[in-house]
Amino acid sequence: MSDVLQQLAQILEQRKLESADKSYVASLYAKGLDSILKKIGEEATETVIAAKDGDKKQIIYETADLWFHCMVLLADQGLGPDDVLQELQRRFGLSGLEEKAQRNK
Amino acid sequence: MSDVLQQLAQILEQRKLESADKSYVASLYAKGLDSILKKIGEEATETVIAAKDGDKKQIIYETADLWFHCMVLLADQGLGPDDVLQELQRRFGLSGLEEKAQRNK
Amino acid sequence: MSDVLQQLAQILEQRKLESADKSYVASLYAKGLDSILKKIGEEATETVIAAKDGDKKQIIYETADLWFHCMVLLADQGLGPDDVLQELQRRFGLSGLEEKAQRNK
Amino acid sequence: MSDVLQQLAQILEQRKLESADKSYVASLYAKGLDSILKKIGEEATETVIAAKDGDKKQIIYETADLWFHCMVLLADQGLGPDDVLQELQRRFGLSGLEEKAQRNK
Repeated sequence: MSDVLQQLAQILEQRKLESADKSYVASLYAKGLDSILKKIGEEATETVIAAKDGDKKQIIYETADLWFHCMVLLADQGLGPDDVLQELQRRFGLSGLEEKAQRNK
Repeated sequence: MSDVLQQLAQILEQRKLESADKSYVASLYAKGLDSILKKIGEEATETVIAAKDGDKKQIIYETADLWFHCMVLLADQGLGPDDVLQELQRRFGLSGLEEKAQRNK
Repeated sequence: MSDVLQQLAQILEQRKLESADKSYVASLYAKGLDSILKKIGEEATETVIAAKDGDKKQIIYETADLWFHCMVLLADQGLGPDDVLQELQRRFGLSGLEEKAQRNK
Repeated sequence: MSDVLQQLAQILEQRKLESADKSYVASLYAKGLDSILKKIGEEATETVIAAKDGDKKQIIYETADLWFHCMVLLADQGLGPDDVLQELQRRFGLSGLEEKAQRNK
């Protein structure tokens, strides 16, 4: 299960070579950054709605949509999931999460 | 790198036992679902801003923040990252990503 | 210019009597609350993108879209723009805006 | 009631002359565009949450917050509410709202 994001990143890389009318991801790349960002805003709102409904299946579905479009953004920018995972590791390895907590409160 | 989310999920589970004034995550659990959802909306907007700035370091940082707060939502709802990764696997294993693409267009 | 919102509210009220396949607003009412809320999330993100582009014409256009869908939400909930304007008046009449400022900081 | 936005716009203009530690609006101007945009993303999410709760008083409150921060954005960009109202008038005067509907569906 734990390398799903890395596998997905490979697929997203391959989509850069495909035509926009055959692949949803290729069509997002072609439409450009703003269209990817709009999807992130949209899916974040849908995650909030699913959570307010208390619908666990829908929370999983919408969070998957949100992470998926974040992955498309990362790929579009020449980045990948390991950059984000490394940042998360850096934080909680150094108990940085709690550090951020103090900063935010 | 690939089991960072699972490690983080364990930490988020432990935070359920801690007091809200010592841990940022515990304080989010204590304030309740809405406070977690507000953070998801907030971090999604910050990801959009970072991407519009073309600042790769900041994109990584804000995406990490966004995924982190999604992880807190999952933990709060008795879910975990594997539920989301399984959903992603289901989609692209069955070329479901492209399926969704067709549906959305 | 200043009664545009009230005129728009009247139009949104009339749309409640129309069929969903003839009117965009009627179709939003028919699809239900979640579809209106998704539009609010979407238009807020588009306003952010327009502002980051520094495109004044687009800022006006997207803010109009955002306010419009807020007006649809208000109408759907049996509310109207005067409820919101009254709240804004209450705040700044009592210098409540600054009061909120202090609270937020 | 109908000139509340114009009155508010005047207040927001005056705040440009005030110091950031005395006025919330002045502090937003000083922190810059991104801080205003984050508030728009935040208040949009809070409006969604209030609507999902079916809490009419809170819907009014959060919509007022959202419109208020849109007004701060407009002021920051040398724009005002009349620009947005004019755009709304242009649309529904020419039944442009329905036109957009057709385009979006």
